Amino acid sequence: MFECSKERMGDKITTFAQFGATGNGGITRYALSPEADQARDEFVKRMEAIGAEIETDDLANVYATLPGSDPDAKRIVMGSHVDSVKNGGNYDGILGVMTAMEVLETVAEHDIPHKHPLTAMIWTNEEGSLYPPAMMVSGIICDKFDEEKMMKSKSVLDGKTTFEEALKANKYRGDKKNRLSPDKYAAMFETHVEQGPILENANNEVGVVTCVAGMVNYRLRTFGQSDHAGTIPMKYRQDALFAASKLILHLHKELDKLDPTLVYTTGEIECHPNVHTVIPDLIDFSIDSRHVDPEVIKQVVEVIKDIPEEIEGCRTEYELAWKRDTVYFDKELVEFVKASADELGYSNQYINSGAGHDAQFVSDLMPTTMLFAPSKDGHSHCEEEFTTVEECTKTASVMLNAVLKTDEKYA
Amino acid sequence: MFECSKERMGDKITTFAQFGATGNGGITRYALSPEADQARDEFVKRMEAIGAEIETDDLANVYATLPGSDPDAKRIVMGSHVDSVKNGGNYDGILGVMTAMEVLETVAEHDIPHKHPLTAMIWTNEEGSLYPPAMMVSGIICDKFDEEKMMKSKSVLDGKTTFEEALKANKYRGDKKNRLSPDKYAAMFETHVEQGPILENANNEVGVVTCVAGMVNYRLRTFGQSDHAGTIPMKYRQDALFAASKLILHLHKELDKLDPTLVYTTGEIECHPNVHTVIPDLIDFSIDSRHVDPEVIKQVVEVIKDIPEEIEGCRTEYELAWKRDTVYFDKELVEFVKASADELGYSNQYINSGAGHDAQFVSDLMPTTMLFAPSKDGHSHCEEEFTTVEECTKTASVMLNAVLKTDEKYA
Repeated sequence: MFECSKERMGDKITTFAQFGATGNGGITRYALSPEADQARDEFVKRMEAIGAEIETDDLANVYATLPGSDPDAKRIVMGSHVDSVKNGGNYDGILGVMTAMEVLETVAEHDIPHKHPLTAMIWTNEEGSLYPPAMMVSGIICDKFDEEKMMKSKSVLDGKTTFEEALKANKYRGDKKNRLSPDKYAAMFETHVEQGPILENANNEVGVVTCVAGMVNYRLRTFGQSDHAGTIPMKYRQDALFAASKLILHLHKELDKLDPTLVYTTGEIECHPNVHTVIPDLIDFSIDSRHVDPEVIKQVVEVIKDIPEEIEGCRTEYELAWKRDTVYFDKELVEFVKASADELGYSNQYINSGAGHDAQFVSDLMPTTMLFAPSKDGHSHCEEEFTTVEECTKTASVMLNAVLKTDEKYA
Repeated sequence: MFECSKERMGDKITTFAQFGATGNGGITRYALSPEADQARDEFVKRMEAIGAEIETDDLANVYATLPGSDPDAKRIVMGSHVDSVKNGGNYDGILGVMTAMEVLETVAEHDIPHKHPLTAMIWTNEEGSLYPPAMMVSGIICDKFDEEKMMKSKSVLDGKTTFEEALKANKYRGDKKNRLSPDKYAAMFETHVEQGPILENANNEVGVVTCVAGMVNYRLRTFGQSDHAGTIPMKYRQDALFAASKLILHLHKELDKLDPTLVYTTGEIECHPNVHTVIPDLIDFSIDSRHVDPEVIKQVVEVIKDIPEEIEGCRTEYELAWKRDTVYFDKELVEFVKASADELGYSNQYINSGAGHDAQFVSDLMPTTMLFAPSKDGHSHCEEEFTTVEECTKTASVMLNAVLKTDEKYA
């Protein structure tokens, strides 16, 4: 068993945390920004230092490859993203890039024999914070999103610059022939922070991810009657916010009867006319539900379809906004990860991903899997993100050994 | 007993409905707009036709006065506003101007003897829809609002033009010495639509308003923990919207135990970060409560102060936004209105105003009262506002006779 270097891992964490630093312990590093370029520069510098070959594709994805002993073998790729949300942290995304670098650096340092070329990769625009949607570029490459439409996505900051314009101006834009594809790549691994408290609460150092949970996202609406707050007796009111509050409690009551690992969130709420002296006539809120088991998702949909048609005199309405089915990762790769963690003696567990990641799209193209490192207090997408250097290094070591198992097993 | 003219009243309603007509049965007639000037032009034309003297003050209020037989007597004034909310109706505000005109026209037509000069008045900017706040100009004249600050109020449409600039450009801007004041005016009457369903449901034609109900307006907040919608198990969540929904239901439960004529409204709600994939960490909502009895308002405040300090793991907070005490109208004038309605044989009842009106401020300066005409289905501040010509005319007749009683009784 090989282990990665804690010192080198720590140095990478400290270094990458500078690119887009907010001054408050976090970073803002939008896709294709100068800060994201700084991170790519550092990646390229370090990868060239170990003799990796650098390629870029037309979507500004960056690939660093160490050759393998078999000239006919396809590449095994590890990667994630360097872009962040606004005021994000030092682990979401970048940890998957740093662990991939760490695997290659360890292979190079110890001259570990391997047949397949090994690639560390940076995905462009996973967060979609500046150019929506999230997972845009893996969505293009894996044929989930319409490329032409994505190119027209506009900067949320200036409302003008398109993703295509930013891409064309970026020095990492390369050749389309270099895109990740099953012709050239045999498997993909992505390490990410958990973004939840499960590993931490179970005192586990590594998460062996088995799938990305399925999701349904509905919009729910209550329709009332807008009237003056001071002039309508209570008994004549149709208050859409009162109705929506009852509906939210009803959903909690019914959904809490389902499987306890179901998660659901009413994250967005809009009120019309939203004036303190006017009874609301429309509340529109989101409900996002996720579970690995499609049967449980079906039960959620039943609960939503069974909401009362009228609450406190207000008509209700539901509408499917979008959904995704559960994406199961490659069973063999999952077991390579599990075996590697066990053999290294790191406490670990199977876990599913509630959030979406580039790997979920890639799994349509080739065998793919993910590893999770713990998130302190479960926080992510904020400056408080934290994972210890030990945990980062251990996850990298598990990925290294899982990649070597894949290298050995794959033709 | 004198009665006003239904034909003339109907003609006024049809005519004034043209100024700012939306084409959908309603009007948009912002303060100091060309449409508001058209309404003033029509007012002046009709008042000059009956021999009334026109005055304007420095706030563009317009006064039309018929002289009385006693040269030393102060004026009795009736008035309301011609400005509306966006997509408002043909009755809110303008009915108080049209009934005042109708009273003067009836007095002129029948040469009804009276000692006091009788004035019909248009207040500027009651709605505050273009230049906030509501009741701005009566607030200035009655020393409720700081005049200098009000002058700087900016157009909500262009974010630039100040109320002062619009005022200086308006042809109805006149002399400050013409402002409504207790030196020159003995009493004020304001007719308005009820903006609620009480008269209609009781089958009453006229409302004898006794007071403007007291009000307290609080902001309530719940503080949660913002995390990814897909990654945090339900039991670890601090969901501010779930907590706020429970709090809204708690408030309904507790406030519904108080006097049944209490009204309260949660009209405005803000959610942070308001993203469908993120658990909300802050909900901030308004609660506006109104009742005539200060004791009931005190009970409301107790309920708010007694909300649970924590709900579903979320800390709660309350903050007083503003309040007003109940404003009682002049008892003698109220009884003149009541007696007039009874003597005319019109079905009527005592009622309080839940909404604020210019008269509420004026009551600090001089004896003041209000009359309500019914609002179909209780609707106001919308294009559906409706009151029959009969009801408008009857309310005008009641105001006429109440003014004549005042004229007789007052020195």
